[in-house]
Amino acid sequence: MRTTTAWQSSNGSLDPDRVTIERRDLRPDDVAVRIDFCGICHSDLHQIHGHAAGGSVIPGHEFVGAVTEVGAAVTRFAPGDPVAVGTIVDSCGECDMCRAGEEVYCATATRTYAHTDRVDGLPTNGGWSREYVLTEGFVFPLPADLDPAGAAPLLCAGVTVWNPLRRSGIGPGSRVAVAGLGGLGHLAVKFAAALGAEVSVISRTADKHADALALGATDLVVSGDPTHLAASAGRFDLVLDTIPAPHDLGPLLGLLRTGGNCCVVGWFAEMPVDLMGLMLGRKSLSSSATGGRPSTAEMLAFCAEHGITADVEVLPSAQVGNGLARLEKGDVRYRFVLDLADLD
Amino acid sequence: MRTTTAWQSSNGSLDPDRVTIERRDLRPDDVAVRIDFCGICHSDLHQIHGHAAGGSVIPGHEFVGAVTEVGAAVTRFAPGDPVAVGTIVDSCGECDMCRAGEEVYCATATRTYAHTDRVDGLPTNGGWSREYVLTEGFVFPLPADLDPAGAAPLLCAGVTVWNPLRRSGIGPGSRVAVAGLGGLGHLAVKFAAALGAEVSVISRTADKHADALALGATDLVVSGDPTHLAASAGRFDLVLDTIPAPHDLGPLLGLLRTGGNCCVVGWFAEMPVDLMGLMLGRKSLSSSATGGRPSTAEMLAFCAEHGITADVEVLPSAQVGNGLARLEKGDVRYRFVLDLADLD
Repeated sequence: MRTTTAWQSSNGSLDPDRVTIERRDLRPDDVAVRIDFCGICHSDLHQIHGHAAGGSVIPGHEFVGAVTEVGAAVTRFAPGDPVAVGTIVDSCGECDMCRAGEEVYCATATRTYAHTDRVDGLPTNGGWSREYVLTEGFVFPLPADLDPAGAAPLLCAGVTVWNPLRRSGIGPGSRVAVAGLGGLGHLAVKFAAALGAEVSVISRTADKHADALALGATDLVVSGDPTHLAASAGRFDLVLDTIPAPHDLGPLLGLLRTGGNCCVVGWFAEMPVDLMGLMLGRKSLSSSATGGRPSTAEMLAFCAEHGITADVEVLPSAQVGNGLARLEKGDVRYRFVLDLADLD
Repeated sequence: MRTTTAWQSSNGSLDPDRVTIERRDLRPDDVAVRIDFCGICHSDLHQIHGHAAGGSVIPGHEFVGAVTEVGAAVTRFAPGDPVAVGTIVDSCGECDMCRAGEEVYCATATRTYAHTDRVDGLPTNGGWSREYVLTEGFVFPLPADLDPAGAAPLLCAGVTVWNPLRRSGIGPGSRVAVAGLGGLGHLAVKFAAALGAEVSVISRTADKHADALALGATDLVVSGDPTHLAASAGRFDLVLDTIPAPHDLGPLLGLLRTGGNCCVVGWFAEMPVDLMGLMLGRKSLSSSATGGRPSTAEMLAFCAEHGITADVEVLPSAQVGNGLARLEKGDVRYRFVLDLADLD
C-alpha cells in the first residue's frame, strides 16, 4: 500500500481532520493521480451529515490533477498528463448500462468515496486528498485550455446538468429554465446558452438578476412572485431544477410548455406531484445522476471548445471546514474548490 | 335548434334522467351523428360526482354512430357513413398544439361535454344521447371491420393508452407493464402485444392472471406481493399506470429499468414521488390526456388492421344507472357501452 494525506470528517463534523490514509498499490491498469483541485459538492455535505451517528468519510468526487505513475498495462496515460476524475472510479463493463455508456447506473459501479471497491472490497476514500489511485478507464484527459480549478466541478456538477440538456435535445430555438443558481445551476446556464438555447433563471427573489444575465441568461423569473411566475407559464421546454433544498415542484411544472420536462437534479427527497397538471400538459418529471463516460467526455470537449469552466472560489484545503460552513448557508459563488497543494 | 333525447345526471345522481335537449342547427361544416353506442368512462363518474353540490351533466365522450345529415360545406362525410367521436369536438386550428396535431392540448379546444362550445359559447352535452352535432373536422370514419359497440371505447380509453405506447416507441423487444386491468388497461395490453412488445399486467392480486394472458400478456405481477414485485424490479421500459384510484407509485417506479418511464393515465390526484428513486434509475414520471387527431386516426387504423376493439358489456341506455353503480364498484369487464337505440 501507499500512503497519502486527506481531510476526513468523523461523526458528522463539518471541521474535517487531516489524516494519513492508504491508497492501493497500482494494479496493471491503474494510474496514480496527484490531486491538485477538488470541489466541495452539496452531496458531500449530505454524506457528512449522514455520518452524524458515527463513522467517518473522506469526501470529494470532482477533481483534477496530474498522473504521477502508471501500471504496466496502462495505455492512455503517462506521468505528467493532466487528468480529471468524477463520481465513479470503476464499473463492471459488461452490463446493459456499461455497454450503453451509462456506467454511472451500473449496479456494481464503484463510487469515488464512501463506497466499496468492486474488485478488492476495500472502502473508497474521495478526492479531498493529495492522491487517488484508480483504473485508467475512469480517468479523463483534462483539456489543456481549461483552468484546472474551474474544471474540477465539471466532473460532478457539470455532467449532472449536461445530461438532461442533451437528453432534451436543447439547442437553438429551445427555451430552458434553470431553477437555482448554485454550483449546478450556474453551469446549466452556461451550457444551455452555449448550446444556443434561450435561458431563464428561476430564483426566489430578483437578487441574482445581474448574475443570471452575466452567465448568459436572458432573464430571471422570480418564483416568489405569482404574477411574474404566471407571466412565464407554459414557456419552457425544459426546467432544470437544481435547487438543493426542499421546495414545491408545482410552480416549476407550471412553467413547462405542453410536452415539456422538469428534471430534478438538486434535491432527492419525496415530493408531492400534481398528476393532473402533468396530464393536462402532457408533461414529465424526471431525474438523473451524473453521467457515463461518453457524456462526460463529450461535456469536457464542449467546455474546451466554448471555454466553459465553473466560477469557483478556491480555498487552501486546510480551510475545508470554512467552505463547508459557508456552503451550508448557501454562501458560495458558485462552487468551492479545495487547493490540495497544502497537503504536501 | 333541433331536439334529441339524452341521459342527464343532476346533483350528482348516479341514476340519470331521460331528458329532451337541443342540438344546434348545422353550421356549413357540421355533421349530425345518430349515436348508436357510447361508452361509460371513469371520468364520467368523476364529472357526475363533481356536480353533487348542484347542476347537471350529460356525459359521454367515446361514441360511434352514423352520419344523418351534413352541412353545405362538408366534404368528408355523407349521410349513412359510420363514424366515431372522442373527447373533443373542436379546436382553434392555429395554435402550436393544433399545428402539431395535438389538438387535445389546444387551450381553446371544445370538450365533448360539460364544457362550452368555442364558437357559440353554449354548453356542450355529451354522447349519452341519440344525436350529436359537431364540425366534420373532429369526426373520424369508423373502420368497417370494427364492431361498433367495441369500437366506441377506443375514442377515449383507446387513444389514452395508445399515445404513451407510441411516445415510448414500444415495439418488438420492448417490455411494457400495464397496471390495472380495466377499460384503459385491457386495451393497453392488446395494443402493446399487437405492437410486438412483451406485456405484463400489474394487479393487486393474482385473480386476473388468466384474463391477462387471454388479452395477450405473458404474465401477471402481483403488486401486493413484495417478493413477486422484487422479482420484476428493473424489468420494464414503460409502466402504463391505468389504476383509477389512489395508489402508491413507488412499487410501479421500482419496476422500471434505468431510463424507463411511468405514464399515469388513470388517476390524477397529487401523489408523493420519490425523487431519489427517479435519480438513481434516470427514470421519469409522466401523464397525458387522450390524443390529437393524427394519433386517433392512427390508432383506429391500427385497430382495424389488428382486429382490436374493447371487450365491452353493452347495456340498453335506460340501464345507465346500473352501469354507473357497477362501474363504481369496479364490476365491469372491461367497459360498459350504452346502446342508445332505446332513446328513439
